[in-house]
Amino acid sequence: MIKITFPDGSVREYEQGVTGLQIAESISPALARDVLACGVNGETVELNRPINADSTVQLYKWEDDEGKHAFWHTSAHLLAEALQELYPGIQFGFGPAVENGFFYDVLLKDGEAIKEGDFPKIEDKMRELASKKEPVVRKEVSKADALKEFAADGQTYKCEHIEQDLEDGSITTYTQGAFTDLCKGPHLLNTGLIKAIKLTSVAGAFWRGDATREQMQRLYGITFPKKKMLDEYLVMLEEAKKRDHRKIGKEMELFMFSERVGKGLPIWLPKGTELRLRMQDMLRKIQSRYGYKEVITPHIGSKNLYVTSGHYAHYGKDSFQPIHTPEEGEEYMLKPMNCPHHCEVFAWKPRSYRDLPLRIAEFGTVYRYEQSGELHGLTRVRSFTQDDAHIFCRPDQVKNEFLRVMDIIHTVFSIFHFDNFEAQISLRDPNDREKYIGSDEVWEKGEQAIIEACKEKGLKAKIEYGEAAFYGPKLDFMVKDAIGRRWQLGTIQIDYNLPERFKLEYTDEDNTKKTPVMIHRAPFGSMERFCAVLIEHTAGHFPLWLTPDQVAILPISEKYNDYAARVARELDAVGVRATIDSRNEKIGRKVRDNELKRIPYMVIVGEKEQADGTVSVRKQGSEERGVMTIVEFAGKVNAEVAELLKATDVRPE
Amino acid sequence: MIKITFPDGSVREYEQGVTGLQIAESISPALARDVLACGVNGETVELNRPINADSTVQLYKWEDDEGKHAFWHTSAHLLAEALQELYPGIQFGFGPAVENGFFYDVLLKDGEAIKEGDFPKIEDKMRELASKKEPVVRKEVSKADALKEFAADGQTYKCEHIEQDLEDGSITTYTQGAFTDLCKGPHLLNTGLIKAIKLTSVAGAFWRGDATREQMQRLYGITFPKKKMLDEYLVMLEEAKKRDHRKIGKEMELFMFSERVGKGLPIWLPKGTELRLRMQDMLRKIQSRYGYKEVITPHIGSKNLYVTSGHYAHYGKDSFQPIHTPEEGEEYMLKPMNCPHHCEVFAWKPRSYRDLPLRIAEFGTVYRYEQSGELHGLTRVRSFTQDDAHIFCRPDQVKNEFLRVMDIIHTVFSIFHFDNFEAQISLRDPNDREKYIGSDEVWEKGEQAIIEACKEKGLKAKIEYGEAAFYGPKLDFMVKDAIGRRWQLGTIQIDYNLPERFKLEYTDEDNTKKTPVMIHRAPFGSMERFCAVLIEHTAGHFPLWLTPDQVAILPISEKYNDYAARVARELDAVGVRATIDSRNEKIGRKVRDNELKRIPYMVIVGEKEQADGTVSVRKQGSEERGVMTIVEFAGKVNAEVAELLKATDVRPE
Repeated sequence: MIKITFPDGSVREYEQGVTGLQIAESISPALARDVLACGVNGETVELNRPINADSTVQLYKWEDDEGKHAFWHTSAHLLAEALQELYPGIQFGFGPAVENGFFYDVLLKDGEAIKEGDFPKIEDKMRELASKKEPVVRKEVSKADALKEFAADGQTYKCEHIEQDLEDGSITTYTQGAFTDLCKGPHLLNTGLIKAIKLTSVAGAFWRGDATREQMQRLYGITFPKKKMLDEYLVMLEEAKKRDHRKIGKEMELFMFSERVGKGLPIWLPKGTELRLRMQDMLRKIQSRYGYKEVITPHIGSKNLYVTSGHYAHYGKDSFQPIHTPEEGEEYMLKPMNCPHHCEVFAWKPRSYRDLPLRIAEFGTVYRYEQSGELHGLTRVRSFTQDDAHIFCRPDQVKNEFLRVMDIIHTVFSIFHFDNFEAQISLRDPNDREKYIGSDEVWEKGEQAIIEACKEKGLKAKIEYGEAAFYGPKLDFMVKDAIGRRWQLGTIQIDYNLPERFKLEYTDEDNTKKTPVMIHRAPFGSMERFCAVLIEHTAGHFPLWLTPDQVAILPISEKYNDYAARVARELDAVGVRATIDSRNEKIGRKVRDNELKRIPYMVIVGEKEQADGTVSVRKQGSEERGVMTIVEFAGKVNAEVAELLKATDVRPE
Repeated sequence: MIKITFPDGSVREYEQGVTGLQIAESISPALARDVLACGVNGETVELNRPINADSTVQLYKWEDDEGKHAFWHTSAHLLAEALQELYPGIQFGFGPAVENGFFYDVLLKDGEAIKEGDFPKIEDKMRELASKKEPVVRKEVSKADALKEFAADGQTYKCEHIEQDLEDGSITTYTQGAFTDLCKGPHLLNTGLIKAIKLTSVAGAFWRGDATREQMQRLYGITFPKKKMLDEYLVMLEEAKKRDHRKIGKEMELFMFSERVGKGLPIWLPKGTELRLRMQDMLRKIQSRYGYKEVITPHIGSKNLYVTSGHYAHYGKDSFQPIHTPEEGEEYMLKPMNCPHHCEVFAWKPRSYRDLPLRIAEFGTVYRYEQSGELHGLTRVRSFTQDDAHIFCRPDQVKNEFLRVMDIIHTVFSIFHFDNFEAQISLRDPNDREKYIGSDEVWEKGEQAIIEACKEKGLKAKIEYGEAAFYGPKLDFMVKDAIGRRWQLGTIQIDYNLPERFKLEYTDEDNTKKTPVMIHRAPFGSMERFCAVLIEHTAGHFPLWLTPDQVAILPISEKYNDYAARVARELDAVGVRATIDSRNEKIGRKVRDNELKRIPYMVIVGEKEQADGTVSVRKQGSEERGVMTIVEFAGKVNAEVAELLKATDVRPE
């Protein structure tokens, strides 16, 4: 008998050689039906792999990334199986699972190509094959045998891969039906679990990503265990297209790009700038209560600064290159992060334990080089502004600082109605402690501080071993948006490295010099990325306190343009932001046009309103209607704003 | 007889050969006593130069830059005369008048050197020579004679200068007493006018500023026509030293520099950042009323952007060099100005005459390379933030836009109590119209618009011909600070060039495409420079609305620290910024220490205040004292702030 330990700490005994599937069956038939793969001592394997010694075991379902990964990886093989039948002589490259589905790189013979019009035929074949419920069989093979087998099939690329990358004794193949692939797995036990299939696109891709090699075709697809899930996914895709922040950003005139300024360098247009400044002011207000001190530092630093920080050695070659000057020996870098500057602020004068925690904040614009092909709207850019801060504190203050930062992040998320979020704790690899800087003791303390802080706050957090940076453990926040997509926003990181590199010190109570711990944190992450996510989350329907225009004033006819202007003036005087649609158009047309503009309130003004000093109010996206005086309406808007911002009225305990 | 025209347009007749001094005598004995030099058809000459044809004549006194210049130039010769007597064998380099006095570069024989301790002896000799009232005599000499004369005196550097730089027929010498200098003049008629003399410093200077040539000594001095003026000047210097913004900036922890970040790259510390943000918000509020739209653009642009704008050709070599990237053919520049980015914003979508004037504003940080030897605190830096805006308008809108910008600049100056300011209008050189871009017609219109706008606002403005930029005329503002120094702050410039280079256009009422006029403007000029001037103007005693800490709370003893914290909390809740001096010190000591801290209000709290819920208020720099409730005190502070900011409550007419 062997002992199997489960994630919740419980232990059961099984016969030696038991499989993941058998374990699932021993727990419940439902689990046995849903389980897709299993983790044995941290390694994901097939459900029919015998377990021969005491182990920790995790059973992965669709909800787990590992379960989805096995599902989509097997789907890639299913796609290849179908293609092999439909296109004899086809050559295969790589075919992995990816974040949303899978792809396979292929090359048809005689210069033929697969087109989108061929997708239904291929999908049909995949469905036909899946309905056979073919088992997926794993086999260990020698390098010589593998080469022989794939050469016989005419698989030139597979052979090149075996020869150049793989070592004898570590090679496995997976076979379902007539198709065998070179693969490390893990896979589903059979292809019959794949119930819903959709090929999504086809693009060009160089073999091994090398522009000097053959151009293949990359077929993307996604699959699900249930038809309903695919339908939901397709609806979500459609909705995502409508919410694309690049499209909405243009329609609402929030931001722009210019080839002449440069790729990936966003320019915030007036309405976007308003939005961003309002977000910054909101966070500023909270941060000032939490004892943050704001600074402004330059966007360049001497190369020496980044040699000291170690960033130059890390990023030097793949980044924006150094800036030379007419003076000899002078070199500057665009700043890729704000921390080295903030270290210099700390070092500016002697610090005592009484000055700690010292919380230095900055809305700091940083520059990081991304390849032009990787750029995407505001989510992948070359310049972005972090809502950055660095907390310098004593090791025993780390936990409390984490709690305070978590308060701020929760407040920010709640104000933007990101009500659905979770966190990931990244810790050291317990088997490879040498690669991390800093003593075991401070790491233990730091890791425990993060875990305890999450527990105290009741935050759902997944622990990932080996995912910490070399300089310290961290906590990342993932939000789910209105259509179910997950985005990484917000981060808190401990850093034991930079304070040492910059020789930072404070005088402790016992009059000795000590090195402070540094915490990096950014609730928004980056203003650009956060805005992009917010646009897609809200489809451009920003909260009333934030939206550039709060009210659209629609005069019934040009006769009432003057009254509309008076309404606008009176609203402006009490801080309500209004715009007037003074076009010479029918009111019906104006209402329809303004409904598309994502302005929360429309007010219509005509003869009666002018005579009474009132406005006819319509709230967008609701049936709410009413006539009220200008003052009443302004009061209503401002009360609503105050209610929305109430959550910002936090103070540290 | 010849006709002499005066600056006010009046005309008088004089005999041919009349001199400036004779003209002055003909007007009044007082003028004859005060006049120092004269301008004849724009050229400044000695008062004894005969005028032989109809001319425009200006008489320069001490108050005029030209008068001071002649005075200090003659003083430089007086210094040389004294040195020649005291240090036989001395070699002379150049000896010009400068902004505040004059200098002379000299080299003593046998490696001897002049020290500050020698100044009294030299000053005495200068006074002795001046008391002789020696006439200064001008003489035209041939190149050969000049060379012979200075070689005989052993003046190696003068000879090199004659040989390498001067042409036969254009050489003049000036002689007083036993001293003759090679010089273009103009000079005073005699050295007896120099009544007050002060040598200020001695420094090293290479001959011709060339580090490979001989190092000479540069002696700086200043002189005045009255002893009282020197005394006032010395007091001002002393006061200026106390107000040095670098010293106060450090004491008040407003900004810092770090060698590791880079020379001339200011870092705004928390209290400085608060100050700057408050200034920006104040201007933002005004600008939004005046129809400005704020944008945020990146701090770099492709090299191509600056090739298009023409900046690269102008500044390329002497500036921060291009930034390369791993992608081929990509080059970026740190932005030296915001205008090209704003042109791209204009060009983002089609514009109609209805969109004009379009006013694009940005607090844009720019990077300009200055040699390290030129850097000085916040007034001469390599990175600074302009309160920039670019107005795109039709030619007929220029005057009105100037009026509006002048309103904003006046408002800003009045809020900071720069009550003493004047302006300079820079127009084309009427004799060389070819070097300017743009048609005669638009230049006429633009220049007239500026002149009329100044007249309408009753602004004292001096017209300078030939001082316009090649791309358009401009208006600069000069303020006088609390100790009488003049600073250039604020500028409005017309630009006909960039809109053409960027091919900007709008559709006019007649449906044709037209090129807009662009106006650059910055009321502060740069946040860094303005703050520096403000610090020196106020000696760090910032206005109540602006100052980082408005109130210092001083508990009588530690027993009342809790009550002090309550006072701080209640003040904070209504927006009053307070700091607590909770040190375990006697109250007398706390009062003295806080008096040095430039915090406008001190409130003292002890037993009685705690019992009554009151504070004992002392206003810094005044005898004002009083006991009031916390609420009363907060109300008083906020009312005072509102009163100070009332001037910002402007709207365009």
